[in-house]
Amino acid sequence: MAKTQLQRARGGETTPAVERVAERENADPEFVRRQVADGRAVIPNNRAHESLDPMIIGREFSTKVNANIGNSDTTGDAEGELRKLHAAVHYGADTVMDLSTGENLDETREANVEHSPVPIGTVPIYEAVKRADGPEDITHELLLDVVEKQAEQGVDYMTIHAGVLMEHLPLTDGRKTGIVSRGGSILARWMEENGMQNPLYAKFEEICDIFAEHDVTFSLGDGLRPGSIADAGDEAQFAELETLGELTRTARERGVQVMVEGPGHVPMDEIADNVARQQDVCDGAPFYVLGPLVTDIAPGYDHITSAIGAAEAGRAGAAMLCYVTPKEHLGLPDEGDVRDGLAAYRIAAHAADVANGLPGARDWDDALSEARYEFDWRRQFELALDPERARSYHDQTLPGDNYKDAQFCSMCGVEFCSMRIDRDARDADGEMEAIDDGTNLDTSPAAEANLPPVGTHDTSRVPDEIEVGGVTFTPEESHGGD
Amino acid sequence: MAKTQLQRARGGETTPAVERVAERENADPEFVRRQVADGRAVIPNNRAHESLDPMIIGREFSTKVNANIGNSDTTGDAEGELRKLHAAVHYGADTVMDLSTGENLDETREANVEHSPVPIGTVPIYEAVKRADGPEDITHELLLDVVEKQAEQGVDYMTIHAGVLMEHLPLTDGRKTGIVSRGGSILARWMEENGMQNPLYAKFEEICDIFAEHDVTFSLGDGLRPGSIADAGDEAQFAELETLGELTRTARERGVQVMVEGPGHVPMDEIADNVARQQDVCDGAPFYVLGPLVTDIAPGYDHITSAIGAAEAGRAGAAMLCYVTPKEHLGLPDEGDVRDGLAAYRIAAHAADVANGLPGARDWDDALSEARYEFDWRRQFELALDPERARSYHDQTLPGDNYKDAQFCSMCGVEFCSMRIDRDARDADGEMEAIDDGTNLDTSPAAEANLPPVGTHDTSRVPDEIEVGGVTFTPEESHGGD
Repeated sequence: MAKTQLQRARGGETTPAVERVAERENADPEFVRRQVADGRAVIPNNRAHESLDPMIIGREFSTKVNANIGNSDTTGDAEGELRKLHAAVHYGADTVMDLSTGENLDETREANVEHSPVPIGTVPIYEAVKRADGPEDITHELLLDVVEKQAEQGVDYMTIHAGVLMEHLPLTDGRKTGIVSRGGSILARWMEENGMQNPLYAKFEEICDIFAEHDVTFSLGDGLRPGSIADAGDEAQFAELETLGELTRTARERGVQVMVEGPGHVPMDEIADNVARQQDVCDGAPFYVLGPLVTDIAPGYDHITSAIGAAEAGRAGAAMLCYVTPKEHLGLPDEGDVRDGLAAYRIAAHAADVANGLPGARDWDDALSEARYEFDWRRQFELALDPERARSYHDQTLPGDNYKDAQFCSMCGVEFCSMRIDRDARDADGEMEAIDDGTNLDTSPAAEANLPPVGTHDTSRVPDEIEVGGVTFTPEESHGGD
Repeated sequence: MAKTQLQRARGGETTPAVERVAERENADPEFVRRQVADGRAVIPNNRAHESLDPMIIGREFSTKVNANIGNSDTTGDAEGELRKLHAAVHYGADTVMDLSTGENLDETREANVEHSPVPIGTVPIYEAVKRADGPEDITHELLLDVVEKQAEQGVDYMTIHAGVLMEHLPLTDGRKTGIVSRGGSILARWMEENGMQNPLYAKFEEICDIFAEHDVTFSLGDGLRPGSIADAGDEAQFAELETLGELTRTARERGVQVMVEGPGHVPMDEIADNVARQQDVCDGAPFYVLGPLVTDIAPGYDHITSAIGAAEAGRAGAAMLCYVTPKEHLGLPDEGDVRDGLAAYRIAAHAADVANGLPGARDWDDALSEARYEFDWRRQFELALDPERARSYHDQTLPGDNYKDAQFCSMCGVEFCSMRIDRDARDADGEMEAIDDGTNLDTSPAAEANLPPVGTHDTSRVPDEIEVGGVTFTPEESHGGD
């Protein structure tokens, strides 16, 4: 049997995928290989996914963003899904999950894999529910069947909710929002109806073998993730995490790459602890978080509530951020929502990279800031995260090419543009003159140490009389000045 | 002369404003009085602002949000400004700054004060520039004149950039983006042209006396705040902060309330240090931050880049967050931008309050989460930060009243709604059955300690044979189950 990226990395091999990833991340291939060998990074790369440009997910690399697309049984069609895939890749998704639960599942999935240069993820339990006609009627055989077929179709990673155990279910009693993971709720229903252990757990080793054959990467699902701030960090969440740690080790022993999914809804002060705990329990497996939302109060703006949490998670060491769109909790996202969700999450990911000092991350910020200070609007738009939006907002008040060389924008106008005024105040070298008004002020970088003491504002710097703009001023005290 | 809130609080008086604030914050009036007396909180409350409902800004109270409105010389009219004021108050601004630099400054300002139930802030140097016909021609007399007139008009707080000293200006050489504060650049220009010290600094004590007479609160401007990640935390920024600390003490000695403005553009990892430093240097004066943006790469989405930083700042102790709209760096915001900016910032402020454990803050989250789990869509919309937007997003795929009792939404559809499945799996008391499949599993909260060891997935929980949905399954091993 062909070996997985994990097995080859362990064997000391620098695979073409490792080479490509090193190039994309501007990293040393040997460092990449070791990260993969240690399970601290994954390269989701199904052997059958021919259009894939390999990428890596791990805390030592740039923070990645996943976009969820997919239809539901009330909304969405196959063509619309391909449009969403295109939008997701266009707006910068590093991976895309097809979460379809409606019609034409196979066709949609196959089209997505065929067209996607980024890894495609799925949640096979959804198809199992569709085929069994309800959660409780899923069989072990059907589950393995679905997993194997999707692996053959070229899916790069799959969410497997094997950590939701029957002994965890009573721990969710008394929660404000119960079980909010679709996979988690399906498996809970199955266990309650059938009185048996989670079939994904019971069959975990068989799933490992299928994954090893196709080099599918695990995304161990957090079926008991909190669905509200109130439920964050409860016993159910952390009991499942312990199981995910065990499953991580089992999968790795069988040569399969693993990342681990995380919450959800978490107040800001608990996010860093969540990441540290996952890294500890799961032996450094990449953490792939959904947001988290830092408050529950803002349906319609949950791309923002969750981008705040995602940035914090990325800063604390999460390796991939699953976006949330403005439609979360309210409806199925459309193309516009995909764009807004990706923008928010690429911001969060990049902000985390900058804060974590990822080599080269800040170059982008610096280039854009330089274009801004140069009033090079075209370059500013080119460099922008979303060039079309930046340009269209500028066009709203100053349309057309005429204003793309202007030394101002409509925010402050001609007269009040701080950057223009600042530049006017400087000499040809861009320097402010060190002003000497006769009081021998220290203008060295240590000047702040010599500031006037409290209450003694030095009026010696006020001139005798100045007359400008038709107004004459004569100060009461006069001790020099120009 | 009538006393200021600060002087009265120091004198042990519980003023009507203190009483009202205590009621709004659900706090003890004596605690409020002490916070004001110590300068750790301010109640901006110009004696002439009759329509004001008093509010408090301080780190021990709920985090506040300011909305900037105002026209520029290219865009905006007086009627449009009143619409923006209305939008700002409607969407939850705690204070509003009128930053107009275009036409009809007096009329706009007077109308804003007359109609506003929230404190109005201004930046008087803008009007001075307009009246002097350019930054360099401003006189000391004109400046004091403008400040006094605006105080008489009922402005509750004013941004005074008195901390930008001539000895700081050379410290900005070599910055990527120079001086980006409008006030800061105007004063730099003035100092460079006139060869004299910042007039707001030279005349600071006179300004204090005007403020004391009308009980105007200082918002000490940070004219040298960084305008890019590259410039964050440089010598210029921190030299000015030292001066702001001195000015804070001068103003307090003269009985005037003070808050201090902060950056701007700061990477996530430096935000908490910025807040701690300001609190230390400025003796606990409330910190009023502009964002900060945590990356420069996303013009068109700077309400999001900055809401991430604002949430982090609020969590670290900032008392008020000045919003940034999606139009930042690109154009003058319109009503829609005011709405989007406020939503992002109210999220940031509330997330900080939840993380900081502000008493009662999480009640809102809990109420909304309960409505969500109950499928009470109408209540969910009512409780939402922006009810109109939440409802309109829901209406996009499931329009009308029919679906407002539905136990699903279009995101997951009928069959895959996790909350519906979760509820179906529970008994009448909302509990999951503790499943006993004959293996004496420990279902107590300590269950996670007894999980199976690595690699020994307990197949005893797999049944002999099950046949459901037309598919029969026979496991290889059979040791019980139901």
